[in-house]
Amino acid sequence: MDKYEQVIELAKRRGFLWNSFELYGGTAGFYDYGPLGCTLKRRIEQIWRDMFVIQEGFMEIETPTVGIESVFVASGHVAGFSDPLCECKVCGEAFRADHLVEKIVPVADALSNEELDRIIRENHVKCPECEGELGETYEFNLMFKTRIGPGAGRQGYMRPETAQGMFVDFLRLARFYREKLPFGATQIGKSYRNEISPRQGVIRLREFTQAEAEIFIDPNDKSHPNIGRFADTVLNLYSGAAQEKGEIERLTLGEALEKGIIAHEFLAYQIGLTNLFLQRVGVSPDMLRFRQHKKDEMAHYAMDCWDAEVSTDRFGWIEVVGIADRTDYDLCSHAAVSRTELSIYREYPKPRMVTRFCVKPDMGKLGPLFKGKAKAVAEALKALSREELEKEDIRINVDSEDIIVPGDAVEFAEETVRVSGENIVPHVVEPSFGIDRIFYTVLEHAFDVEAVPAKEDIGEESRIILRFRNEVSPVQVAVLPLLTREELIGPARKIEARLREKGLLVSYDDSGTIGRRYRRNDEIGTPYSVTVDYETLEDNTVTIRERDSMKQVRTPIEGIEDVLYDLMYRGRDFESAGTAF
Amino acid sequence: MDKYEQVIELAKRRGFLWNSFELYGGTAGFYDYGPLGCTLKRRIEQIWRDMFVIQEGFMEIETPTVGIESVFVASGHVAGFSDPLCECKVCGEAFRADHLVEKIVPVADALSNEELDRIIRENHVKCPECEGELGETYEFNLMFKTRIGPGAGRQGYMRPETAQGMFVDFLRLARFYREKLPFGATQIGKSYRNEISPRQGVIRLREFTQAEAEIFIDPNDKSHPNIGRFADTVLNLYSGAAQEKGEIERLTLGEALEKGIIAHEFLAYQIGLTNLFLQRVGVSPDMLRFRQHKKDEMAHYAMDCWDAEVSTDRFGWIEVVGIADRTDYDLCSHAAVSRTELSIYREYPKPRMVTRFCVKPDMGKLGPLFKGKAKAVAEALKALSREELEKEDIRINVDSEDIIVPGDAVEFAEETVRVSGENIVPHVVEPSFGIDRIFYTVLEHAFDVEAVPAKEDIGEESRIILRFRNEVSPVQVAVLPLLTREELIGPARKIEARLREKGLLVSYDDSGTIGRRYRRNDEIGTPYSVTVDYETLEDNTVTIRERDSMKQVRTPIEGIEDVLYDLMYRGRDFESAGTAF
Repeated sequence: MDKYEQVIELAKRRGFLWNSFELYGGTAGFYDYGPLGCTLKRRIEQIWRDMFVIQEGFMEIETPTVGIESVFVASGHVAGFSDPLCECKVCGEAFRADHLVEKIVPVADALSNEELDRIIRENHVKCPECEGELGETYEFNLMFKTRIGPGAGRQGYMRPETAQGMFVDFLRLARFYREKLPFGATQIGKSYRNEISPRQGVIRLREFTQAEAEIFIDPNDKSHPNIGRFADTVLNLYSGAAQEKGEIERLTLGEALEKGIIAHEFLAYQIGLTNLFLQRVGVSPDMLRFRQHKKDEMAHYAMDCWDAEVSTDRFGWIEVVGIADRTDYDLCSHAAVSRTELSIYREYPKPRMVTRFCVKPDMGKLGPLFKGKAKAVAEALKALSREELEKEDIRINVDSEDIIVPGDAVEFAEETVRVSGENIVPHVVEPSFGIDRIFYTVLEHAFDVEAVPAKEDIGEESRIILRFRNEVSPVQVAVLPLLTREELIGPARKIEARLREKGLLVSYDDSGTIGRRYRRNDEIGTPYSVTVDYETLEDNTVTIRERDSMKQVRTPIEGIEDVLYDLMYRGRDFESAGTAF
Repeated sequence: MDKYEQVIELAKRRGFLWNSFELYGGTAGFYDYGPLGCTLKRRIEQIWRDMFVIQEGFMEIETPTVGIESVFVASGHVAGFSDPLCECKVCGEAFRADHLVEKIVPVADALSNEELDRIIRENHVKCPECEGELGETYEFNLMFKTRIGPGAGRQGYMRPETAQGMFVDFLRLARFYREKLPFGATQIGKSYRNEISPRQGVIRLREFTQAEAEIFIDPNDKSHPNIGRFADTVLNLYSGAAQEKGEIERLTLGEALEKGIIAHEFLAYQIGLTNLFLQRVGVSPDMLRFRQHKKDEMAHYAMDCWDAEVSTDRFGWIEVVGIADRTDYDLCSHAAVSRTELSIYREYPKPRMVTRFCVKPDMGKLGPLFKGKAKAVAEALKALSREELEKEDIRINVDSEDIIVPGDAVEFAEETVRVSGENIVPHVVEPSFGIDRIFYTVLEHAFDVEAVPAKEDIGEESRIILRFRNEVSPVQVAVLPLLTREELIGPARKIEARLREKGLLVSYDDSGTIGRRYRRNDEIGTPYSVTVDYETLEDNTVTIRERDSMKQVRTPIEGIEDVLYDLMYRGRDFESAGTAF
């Protein structure tokens, strides 16, 4: 078993992840979050919310997961969100054509469908399932399609990213924030990709959770007021240049900015924040790097783009976050398709005098001359230069027809006007988080197997531990009566209630030997276990056991909720929580 | 403007609710939650989570919103989740046939499609849009359909309720809870209904949020250990009998149980909990009732069902929660379609001796006699009674063929065996919450307009207030420098940071006159505003203004985060928060 298998086996057995629709044989690309998995996921989402929504002030919105066609025409997903699909002519199984040839050519995902077909033909690639002949490669759009409303209905798609909801709401958001840049909005929600043939378990899902922020910034000022916060943060940076050399660099964000490796402060700040978030939820810092998109892989409109990548045992480095400066691409696309100006008005600190060349066609003269075409003629005149307008007979072309306009039918002049502000199309900085992959990484990086010392020996040589950080643990405290006896259950249930009232996530467990219950709690990552035994009945004290060290202390029941709260959230030292024994 | 319009106008203006895809003309049945709306919604969901997940211990899971066909065959949605659809032959517009005749007949939604067509014909009902002739009524399935995977793919549906995810995971859940009844699981997530023609704004959405609990209980013991908690809770109950009389009764849950109005304690407890939840988020108790499903409206499998209904200005009483005892219907349906036993094994307190009639066909004799049919013959013999088996020649029928089996080819006897437990199919109690309707109700019940007293007069005669309960307010404290001056902005920003660190939801606002900013905060329901003025610079005190009373107190900056925290969460009296002036 490789580590992925070990982690998934544990995750299924203990209620973190289950195959969806298992009762009906399952379907690739879908996973259920079980009770502990869902709690862990919510805690990860809550930390994201705390950092991006509460602290940064990019307020959360919620837009539908079903979208109408225009949105995805504007976003480019209708035209371009596809993978090359190749079906077996015999068994009908579908494959990603680039995956079929990735061992034959180095950059399979950069090839055209014609090139893919040629390589398949020349190398006699057959169906991996049945050795049958493969059909021609075609583009398969990865959006789930549906129809909205009755009858033929209206074309709908399940959104492939949450981002478009923020762009579509741009004008509403701009008004909400009183048009003061920078402002941002976030979404945490489901997105969908109808993968051709997902074979990487929880790493490639057809339905997944994203947490995305779209931050609208001043295109002329991409500084960040708090960049100092991260100036000395050291990161594993894998810039475009570093990738040429194949060497990751350890640099501070300040240095990376100074050397021009990261395009600007606003992007660098988001990288710093992402690093903080990933470590806070439990990604190992030494298994985390930030990789810059190379020129040829970056979207044509993007100005700079960095992926947070984590190291995994089976899949190697995988992307978990993308952080990009998308310039004004999205707003301009939606503006064009919706024929609506998507900009904000910004007043100058003081009004400016601006000199403009103005053309004023004389409609009184153009009307009688050109009748129905007068308006089109006027428009054409406005586009001309001073030089062209100064001629006695002005030549223009309207609807492929050459037209001559007498010079006295149009006036023109330089005018100096007072302008008090301008319309600005903001640029967008987008940090986009794949929550499911982060969830899996937190599991894998927390997963550990170690030898069991004699004192906790229950006949097994090793114990499995999920070394979760306190803040994300789905169970924070286990309350365990030593035996299933009324006199121990009573006080244990009372402690359970006290801890729950304090807001801690508690599990009560009285089945099996105490050794087995410790082991079970190690497996689900419970940081502390409280044991009620016969000594408790004498002196009102209980044992607290720490997961990682397996150390135990004895402490009074009175105030135990505060002790545990401080251990969980305030970094209280375990030795100080009671008397060692 | 009726109240709905007033509330929606405010909700749009202030960033609670926006029409989805407004930039592209919008689509009925979809709403966006803006920044304040999303925050309010999250707070409502968090309170639900606190009560049902943390306190009751019904752990949250997360299953996909896309589902495969078998799931919805078992649930009955493929066959029966539909509305009668009637299209105009001229303009093609689609209508719900029962809505077209609801002013003609009293119980339109109980009619068959043939009856609906007859009434439409006989009453010459025409298309409400174009007066055109209407086509025949047919059933339109309300699930959004999609295809999973490439090519023809596999039939998929967007789930019409979150509930099925919990049923499909039953065996996993049972193992997680170590098969101890009662246990439960919850989901808070999106569900979808492709409504024919949604015309009730945010009340009838095509994509909506449900919070559902599926609680698996012992079919032979529907008591609840904590029913005492709600025994004295007085509710507006509208039982089946009360509906006959048209009179709501005010009863305690204890009385309702005693009189047999509510079927059992477990259901009554959920009603009590629902009542507590709805009031905690801000539903007015006098505009809330619990209505029992009448025999003829209750699903055939349900044993008792109550809807929490709230009174709204435009729509009257609307359902926001359904609480039902669904018996073993769902588990049995899924067991039948998946051919998997969905039950839990329960050990008897002590083993029982059970006497059974056992039939043991002698395959050594049946084999040579009946060859390929021997197995079917044996099965047929097992179904016979002692009397039939005692005959010398036993007559059976296999595949429509009469067969005679010699009596000595089968043995039978009463056997007494030791049985240590049994398989039980649990019953399900389901509280199902419509979060979007609850959200709207919270807005409408909080909405108020009142005359403005002279001291806060800014030239308007009335002020709009959202009287949110503290716990759900999307903004808890507004920090307002009296003027946009550097010397006031500095301390205001510092206070903002302190409050945010304390975990409070803070908005900083320095645009417009102070009167206007108070009004704006009244409109979004901010309970407290903190104003920084020139006195602040002299003595380090600020003003706190209370939304509802518009009273103000003066209090030191030092410790203000604790004062506001106590006002928000600990019921601290406003007068004690500082010096009145």
